Amino acid sequence: MPPNTTNASAEQRLREFGIELPAPPSPLGAYVEAVQTGKLLFLSGTLPLENGTPKFVGPIGGGLSIEDGRRATQLATLNALAAARQLLGSLDRVTRVVRLAVALLTTPEFRQHPMIADAASELLATVFGADRTSTRMVFGAASLPLQVCVVVELILEVSV
Amino acid sequence: MPPNTTNASAEQRLREFGIELPAPPSPLGAYVEAVQTGKLLFLSGTLPLENGTPKFVGPIGGGLSIEDGRRATQLATLNALAAARQLLGSLDRVTRVVRLAVALLTTPEFRQHPMIADAASELLATVFGADRTSTRMVFGAASLPLQVCVVVELILEVSV
Amino acid sequence: MPPNTTNASAEQRLREFGIELPAPPSPLGAYVEAVQTGKLLFLSGTLPLENGTPKFVGPIGGGLSIEDGRRATQLATLNALAAARQLLGSLDRVTRVVRLAVALLTTPEFRQHPMIADAASELLATVFGADRTSTRMVFGAASLPLQVCVVVELILEVSV
Repeated sequence: MPPNTTNASAEQRLREFGIELPAPPSPLGAYVEAVQTGKLLFLSGTLPLENGTPKFVGPIGGGLSIEDGRRATQLATLNALAAARQLLGSLDRVTRVVRLAVALLTTPEFRQHPMIADAASELLATVFGADRTSTRMVFGAASLPLQVCVVVELILEVSV
Repeated sequence: MPPNTTNASAEQRLREFGIELPAPPSPLGAYVEAVQTGKLLFLSGTLPLENGTPKFVGPIGGGLSIEDGRRATQLATLNALAAARQLLGSLDRVTRVVRLAVALLTTPEFRQHPMIADAASELLATVFGADRTSTRMVFGAASLPLQVCVVVELILEVSV
Repeated sequence: MPPNTTNASAEQRLREFGIELPAPPSPLGAYVEAVQTGKLLFLSGTLPLENGTPKFVGPIGGGLSIEDGRRATQLATLNALAAARQLLGSLDRVTRVVRLAVALLTTPEFRQHPMIADAASELLATVFGADRTSTRMVFGAASLPLQVCVVVELILEVSV
């Protein structure tokens, strides 16, 4: 999926590439999935869940391959986009991806975090365009909720 | 303590539930506890310190129980609220809790991060109301300052 | 290098102390180093790289000393400032350092995170002034890209 270099809107791009967003994730506790303040939309950390079930459990570089880690990161990002659409009504209101944070469960000597996080960045570039690419912060966590291998956290700029 | 579903202000709710905020935390280095920019109030990561002394040291799931972890998280959150009140003058100026980040020291196989982080979310809902609930990002850290089991980081929306 | 308590501008202070910023860092993947939204400038996590090569690899408290960790943190911060200057044109447009996050690779029992993070805070106070000091969040990561010992992430407030 190439980055969006056309003038197609985010929702058009999703249709064009046959990307179906999952049902919006349900919070795992006493929080909400999205908060808008001014032009910023903060999203909760999203997990690689499918219908509420954790996929891709365990450390990348151990039980999970780099390709597993990338698929997990894509899935978590799709969940984040579903939460964003639920609050915004339409992803066409997104004017910029501001910050992408990626927490990964890895083996201690793992070094290739950028390859995993790129799965999120590339998906976002496909949907929103390469010219709306975000900053990024990636690190290895010592443990993650439900032992999933990745949590993705986004801040978006939106039109008000 | 049920969430604030009344029209009571945050300061009224603190009095109603007999919640006394500690003295504002002192920075552990060359930083400040709170910075306001526009309508956003960023708070430093706060620790489960009591009069400057670390409580709840070591990993949750190891030497510390889930209930210990929850009390530690409440204490760290109270310290964050004390820092917020010091800068704002009154917590009644808080219009929304935007983002709650929780870094936990846990055993490697720990999975129940949401139960620990809920101690912060529930306290915030009690003070500010369930309709002002935040987004959330929780992860396990490999080490934390002073070996405490939790660091809480808040972003609040405030009236200007 | 004492904090900037004069009225000297950030660029003047850099010259006064002979601090030369490196060439702006190149992203390690499909992201950008800086995004401005309103008055906030978000920067990507920056590493202790010199000409693209990782310096200071491995855990602090293990193969690396506290002094190594501090020099690594300074280097990562200089890279962040170089990225900020590239987007802004001049660091004189920075009106406040809002948030500094520091992810450290450490041995499990390490407790002295504030001493390491102070290397970033002190450098920022030298350049921007002690009255523009940021909030701070520091934690130990289980792994980091390229196995470097530190990643620094900044949010700046800028004039528009």
